[in-house]
Amino acid sequence: MTYCVGLMLDAGIVLLSDTRTNAGLDNVSTYRKMFTFQKEGERVIALMTAGSLSVTQGTIARLRDAAEDGEKRSIMSVGTMLEVVQLIGDTMSEVAADVGAKLKGSSTSARAGLIVAGQRRGGPMRMFLVYPQGNFIEATRDTPFLQIGEHKYGKPILDRVVRPETSLADAQKAALLSMDSTLRSNLSVGMPLDLAVIEKDRLAVTATRRIEPEDEAFAAMSQAWSAALRRAYTEIDL
Amino acid sequence: MTYCVGLMLDAGIVLLSDTRTNAGLDNVSTYRKMFTFQKEGERVIALMTAGSLSVTQGTIARLRDAAEDGEKRSIMSVGTMLEVVQLIGDTMSEVAADVGAKLKGSSTSARAGLIVAGQRRGGPMRMFLVYPQGNFIEATRDTPFLQIGEHKYGKPILDRVVRPETSLADAQKAALLSMDSTLRSNLSVGMPLDLAVIEKDRLAVTATRRIEPEDEAFAAMSQAWSAALRRAYTEIDL
Repeated sequence: MTYCVGLMLDAGIVLLSDTRTNAGLDNVSTYRKMFTFQKEGERVIALMTAGSLSVTQGTIARLRDAAEDGEKRSIMSVGTMLEVVQLIGDTMSEVAADVGAKLKGSSTSARAGLIVAGQRRGGPMRMFLVYPQGNFIEATRDTPFLQIGEHKYGKPILDRVVRPETSLADAQKAALLSMDSTLRSNLSVGMPLDLAVIEKDRLAVTATRRIEPEDEAFAAMSQAWSAALRRAYTEIDL
Repeated sequence: MTYCVGLMLDAGIVLLSDTRTNAGLDNVSTYRKMFTFQKEGERVIALMTAGSLSVTQGTIARLRDAAEDGEKRSIMSVGTMLEVVQLIGDTMSEVAADVGAKLKGSSTSARAGLIVAGQRRGGPMRMFLVYPQGNFIEATRDTPFLQIGEHKYGKPILDRVVRPETSLADAQKAALLSMDSTLRSNLSVGMPLDLAVIEKDRLAVTATRRIEPEDEAFAAMSQAWSAALRRAYTEIDL
């Protein structure tokens, strides 16, 4: 499985993904699930992927080829973020149909899901969740975060602390704590992690960080959170 | 859906269940999911149920009838807790087969799961999770809690704080906080809640509590936990 979370805040977008993929419990690998496309000052797009690796890799490859070949209809050329996500949804649904036809009669799934976030010059920041069928929903002020993969373990902390007004620093913390809960409770989600920040109107990925298993800052945060939770738990009266 | 959690500690057993059942989002009802059988000083057995209501009600009804009719092989008469859970698993698998045959061709599921906990005179406390097929696993010192239904939201807090040495008071708090996270993040789990405590070697349910939506102590605990989490979150350095 996978856990990816995207937070859309007044100040910008925070994205966090794990890197564990598995075909059965005895076939575990590390693959990057976060992909960014940008032309600074013009447009920035980030994708996070979950589900069938052959579908998500095929989708990213087609999107990248079209963008690099300067095709008329690529995610770097279409007019709006809405057209970007439509193109991504269409591409993924085509790839999933191709892969699905090959897998016919096998129990292997050709399902995948995406989070797409970004901004183009002259437009607002937008963030979408693309379903396996290629249709999508958008993050709003009422629901300023989207999750794909193993989303349940890390949802309670997001429900409690993430608001559109949350600062980018606090949002990174919330995303990392949400991931920390997921990592602890589910083996199918694993380090390293990829974190990216897209500040509003900068039209570029303004910060990225790869968090390796031995990352001391993340370990310290994780331990401090555990200790704080245990302390909070001790202080609660029944 | 449902969320039920059972904790098996050195000092006894703590059980907590919600009461929400739904057949579609527009057909939501309240049903008790916790059932206790006891002959004080001889034997205490508690069951918590998840899944198809017709299967779990049918199972409980058959178990109760057999016990009340003084049948030779009932959960109140068989020799050990292992035989108790075997009988329960067999009964549920028979009921599920009956219901499944009726539902053939419909998309409605005849799946159910149970947590069974208790103690008989002369034996140790034991707690089991019974799968829809009737087979089962047992809680151990390494894994002192079992969950059925919507188990993911409430697992991180249990992973962090529940150990066999945890006191019964602390275990009740952990179970309630685990339920609180689940209630907040998933509409298919709902109040009122049923809490039961079975102290070791007392061979009786030693405390029960029904927690209604307007329960002030639970609301206060929930708010204090939210506040403590937010404070802990604020204090963490990234």
